[in-house]
Amino acid sequence: MKRCKILEIEIQNLKLSENLVVFEEQKQIPERESRKILSNDEPLIFVGGIPRSGTTLMRAILDAHPNVRCGGETMMIPNFLSWQASWRKSDWANNTGITRKVMDDAVSAFMMEIIAKHGEMADRLCNKDPYTALWLPTLQRLYPNSKFILMIRDARAIIHSMIERKVPVVGYNISDEKQMFRNWNTEIRKMTTQCMMAGGNCLKVYYERLIQRPKDEIERICQFLDIEFDERMLKHEEFIGVEVALSSQEFSASQVKNSINNEPLTSWFDCFDMELLSKLDRLAPFLKLLGYDTESDKPSYDYFASDDFFEFRSVYS
Amino acid sequence: MKRCKILEIEIQNLKLSENLVVFEEQKQIPERESRKILSNDEPLIFVGGIPRSGTTLMRAILDAHPNVRCGGETMMIPNFLSWQASWRKSDWANNTGITRKVMDDAVSAFMMEIIAKHGEMADRLCNKDPYTALWLPTLQRLYPNSKFILMIRDARAIIHSMIERKVPVVGYNISDEKQMFRNWNTEIRKMTTQCMMAGGNCLKVYYERLIQRPKDEIERICQFLDIEFDERMLKHEEFIGVEVALSSQEFSASQVKNSINNEPLTSWFDCFDMELLSKLDRLAPFLKLLGYDTESDKPSYDYFASDDFFEFRSVYS
Repeated sequence: MKRCKILEIEIQNLKLSENLVVFEEQKQIPERESRKILSNDEPLIFVGGIPRSGTTLMRAILDAHPNVRCGGETMMIPNFLSWQASWRKSDWANNTGITRKVMDDAVSAFMMEIIAKHGEMADRLCNKDPYTALWLPTLQRLYPNSKFILMIRDARAIIHSMIERKVPVVGYNISDEKQMFRNWNTEIRKMTTQCMMAGGNCLKVYYERLIQRPKDEIERICQFLDIEFDERMLKHEEFIGVEVALSSQEFSASQVKNSINNEPLTSWFDCFDMELLSKLDRLAPFLKLLGYDTESDKPSYDYFASDDFFEFRSVYS
Repeated sequence: MKRCKILEIEIQNLKLSENLVVFEEQKQIPERESRKILSNDEPLIFVGGIPRSGTTLMRAILDAHPNVRCGGETMMIPNFLSWQASWRKSDWANNTGITRKVMDDAVSAFMMEIIAKHGEMADRLCNKDPYTALWLPTLQRLYPNSKFILMIRDARAIIHSMIERKVPVVGYNISDEKQMFRNWNTEIRKMTTQCMMAGGNCLKVYYERLIQRPKDEIERICQFLDIEFDERMLKHEEFIGVEVALSSQEFSASQVKNSINNEPLTSWFDCFDMELLSKLDRLAPFLKLLGYDTESDKPSYDYFASDDFFEFRSVYS
């Protein structure tokens, strides 16, 4: 009798257990919506900016963090964003039933699969493609918990780098430097405006400050991203290989093998005509607006390393 | 003792029951992969072919079936298939980590969301975009349970329709009829080859037989699709509105409001130069290969309505 009692209790426990799900007459109905993908609530990290602005360094630093994975540029995502935008016309939407919501669902699924699967899984997934910086409103709408890091750098250093390292960038005609500065201005204006509109979800990071005050900047970035600072982020070059996976197709792969250093600040010195440099405020007004010294052909970058860098800023900088 | 035995057996049954899932230490962890989309195992139906081949009629007939929903052309899906194909290069894949599998996952998610959500849900989802007929291997790989209906029609009727109804089709230059026949030939050759390679998953449907022997053809199509024949499929025009949703952007929306009729068979008669018609076997060899009479400028279509239409066929027809 005692044993039966014990068994009865066991049966009751099995039936009542929270850990137990009992299906009444469960048939073998396979669920149609059985494909699971990451939710759009994922707190994705996007890194962007004009190419040659330190975006690869930024993602290498993030990759050195144990819980973050960016991986290399997909190159495809900005192109996809342009492609999908070209289909969003209201008459087509009304006629095909492909409303903004339907497009958003399809577009967000596509990009999430790419971001999630082109590298290792991690607690915090990250994507670095420079020109995602022209699509902030879309990215924010699709992924409301995502955050964006916009890299800013001196246009003179950027353009010198494109020419010197022969990095082809759509829209930048390396045989026409004035055009390059004008184009930089058009793009950075759009990027900074979108970043401003994204409010607390977008952080501007000046390359010149990141490389001169790495610990402070990286701590600031970690706070923005809501991740714990990790010492490994100061030594990304020691983690090349697994943590920081590099691809030979990335233009900055070779440079990011080096530790953070100041040489890239001044490598553009003596590389532009004085005539061109004197016209910068007209060709590229954003350079000054962002806080760069356009008066000198060999400006100091101490300002970006100063303690009160964040205090006296124009609305764009 | 006997009772204990019974209880022991009950416990065993509870634990072994198929109806039971016991979770060990189930915690309340919100799942990251919490977004559910339709599985790629969905038995999708694709309708395609050269434009003006009766693809809209075919989808209207399918839409009249209570369990099937095609809806109108998305126009975007073939364009998306081309776009995604342009990114599949092995060196890029190796360098970005975006392997064929990753691309397949992202591409299939995108299209499934569009197909599933641009119209009402149904047991059998269907998509009609003529040029999906150039992407059969991809569609079969992404959706292994999908089936394809390839519409075939007399090139003379097709080209006459493009010109007469002023339907712009990329690749068909309406001021150069010879070019149009050559282009038709290039496309139909590719489509029929892909259809053949897809074996039992692709069905060729001759428009000329569909409109002359609708009940037989529709029953044959239902068998291919593994759906029950439904009388409403013979009277699609009575279901315009809800079941058969038309959009003003679809070129054949106006014609599909009419019941199935034979007028479209001969509307091209007297519309081409005899000189052009005499060169068809050279311009468009597939026309004859597919079983059309290229000798006459007013051919009979009785052959397509005959009982033994499926018996004496060349390997392409």
